[in-house]
Amino acid sequence: MIHGGDLISFKDLYDGKIIDYSSNINPLGYPKVLNKVLEDALKDADKYPDIKYRNLKKSISKYLGCSEEEVVVGNGAVEIIDVFIMMFKRIITFNPCFIEYEKRAKIHNKEVLEFFLDENFNIDINLLYENIKEGDCLILGNPNNPTGKRINEDILKNIVRLIENRNAFLILDEAFYEFCPFFYDSIKLFKESKNVAIIRAATKFFALPGIRLGYAFTNSNTARKYDETVLPWSVNVFADVAGSIIFDNISYLQNTKEYINEQRQYLLKELKNVSCLKVFDTDCNFILIKLLKGNEDDLFCFMIKRGILIRKASSFKGLDKTYIRIAVKDFENNSYLIKCFKEYEEFSL
Amino acid sequence: MIHGGDLISFKDLYDGKIIDYSSNINPLGYPKVLNKVLEDALKDADKYPDIKYRNLKKSISKYLGCSEEEVVVGNGAVEIIDVFIMMFKRIITFNPCFIEYEKRAKIHNKEVLEFFLDENFNIDINLLYENIKEGDCLILGNPNNPTGKRINEDILKNIVRLIENRNAFLILDEAFYEFCPFFYDSIKLFKESKNVAIIRAATKFFALPGIRLGYAFTNSNTARKYDETVLPWSVNVFADVAGSIIFDNISYLQNTKEYINEQRQYLLKELKNVSCLKVFDTDCNFILIKLLKGNEDDLFCFMIKRGILIRKASSFKGLDKTYIRIAVKDFENNSYLIKCFKEYEEFSL
Repeated sequence: MIHGGDLISFKDLYDGKIIDYSSNINPLGYPKVLNKVLEDALKDADKYPDIKYRNLKKSISKYLGCSEEEVVVGNGAVEIIDVFIMMFKRIITFNPCFIEYEKRAKIHNKEVLEFFLDENFNIDINLLYENIKEGDCLILGNPNNPTGKRINEDILKNIVRLIENRNAFLILDEAFYEFCPFFYDSIKLFKESKNVAIIRAATKFFALPGIRLGYAFTNSNTARKYDETVLPWSVNVFADVAGSIIFDNISYLQNTKEYINEQRQYLLKELKNVSCLKVFDTDCNFILIKLLKGNEDDLFCFMIKRGILIRKASSFKGLDKTYIRIAVKDFENNSYLIKCFKEYEEFSL
Repeated sequence: MIHGGDLISFKDLYDGKIIDYSSNINPLGYPKVLNKVLEDALKDADKYPDIKYRNLKKSISKYLGCSEEEVVVGNGAVEIIDVFIMMFKRIITFNPCFIEYEKRAKIHNKEVLEFFLDENFNIDINLLYENIKEGDCLILGNPNNPTGKRINEDILKNIVRLIENRNAFLILDEAFYEFCPFFYDSIKLFKESKNVAIIRAATKFFALPGIRLGYAFTNSNTARKYDETVLPWSVNVFADVAGSIIFDNISYLQNTKEYINEQRQYLLKELKNVSCLKVFDTDCNFILIKLLKGNEDDLFCFMIKRGILIRKASSFKGLDKTYIRIAVKDFENNSYLIKCFKEYEEFSL
């Protein structure tokens, strides 16, 4: 198991609908206005998507507050990560992080320099001072998956300064950006930098993993190079039209932010009362947990019997079999999850 | 212009709906049964597609007559070509051919050995005998784009024998396979080979360029290697469900084959009567034409003023500005196209 959301592989383990706590999708679902738009798009399935994604880039640039020439799009955030990785000599990561950073780098025969986050899951910037050089590409999750932590603003500014001085490059993977409350806007912060790409996606916050739409801000020269590297027509017509409309929905944005914030607080508070768990604080819509008794396999079996799919976390480098990750979902499911964790507490006494 | 179908770039040149003769899509449109299925799939946009594409591969394996382990899928045929290219040291092509073979190879820093088809657009197999070696990957369009020619069965068998003896690999790009009348089935021919991949797609014949679905047959070991290399979730949910249903539609398959065959004969016969054109025979749904007067730019301007978008062909290596390519479309549009070509004949006298 290296990715969440693979419900089909486990459907025989529970006689009913499995609740997916293994992938971190907005539980409120995608903006309802989309239904009509996607229905209309059906008739365009017999045409190629616009190979230049003109409308889509216009809509995204408005949402991100940059120009259309500074926007790139891809078949999910993961394709954007992949295409950027292709452009650089050496990739630097801080474990634990999204598994595809290292995987895609190795597939493209790139050298990978792997560091580890410190015991509080923070970046030790000295490691970068000592090691980063021209042509390197550092990839940081912000907030980071699976730790849920965003990078401190001042530290991030220092990292970008260092990256610029060394003529290296920074990819900020901000696939969970909108879930964070009161977060600095890294695009505003680094709008003038020629050494940064900031990746976001419709997948998580807009609840559209099936449609495959990632997008990113980067300087226009790098964007041109990206467009020369990415596969033609990599964003399908449905993602193309969805991306032309979802960002206008201010009330959806606001409601989701508030709701997730509320549910995050609720889950954190309740889970911290479960004695066999060490619950890490989070800035977004998933929670990393260390099991103080038993391991991921025990909890996985316990939970799947109750119709809950959790994410085992030992496949993340730097974490062992005592770690798991769960999503922040809606109140009904979250309270059921807590009930199950309390049963697990009894069970593991 | 390196790809057809880019209607948006030329929409200001004609005051009305442009007829797209630059991309080669089934003019009968996608199977109508799809509308309901795609509408139902809208509700699944909030879930990841099955990361293993179990239903999709089952449906394709049934259609291709192979096992599910021998099927790979991608975000259009072009992603499958790309992933296979990544797996080999050196890429061999015969120009003129689909531009992405060379482009993707260069993007992945692969050595490219380029040959040219002979004056009848056939492959000189001696070039392969003299040059092909272990680790090479030969890519052939079958039928080839833009020439429209399928490879003679005996020559293809000799090529595969050579490929196997040298421990090289052959990619047959059969994106236009179903348009060919009475065509040998290369999957049946090479089912036992460990050195062949045969790529097809929903894009052209099933009229679904917007949905992005490519698939291929290859031996199960290579398929496993492909699955380890391709991006996760690269086929979206709409393509996933479409591919689970379109192949069952026997009458759609038969009707399209007959209709296209009829229209191809009609277009070839009429165009051969236009004195300023040299029209090449074709095995599928597009026609390569050499202009005996004027060049691609002249004809392009002449046609776009009449609402017709043709494909200039000088971007294909081995062809100069006197070549163009057109699609085979429905009777109404085809007869209008012929009318316009006759006007061009008058005009260029």
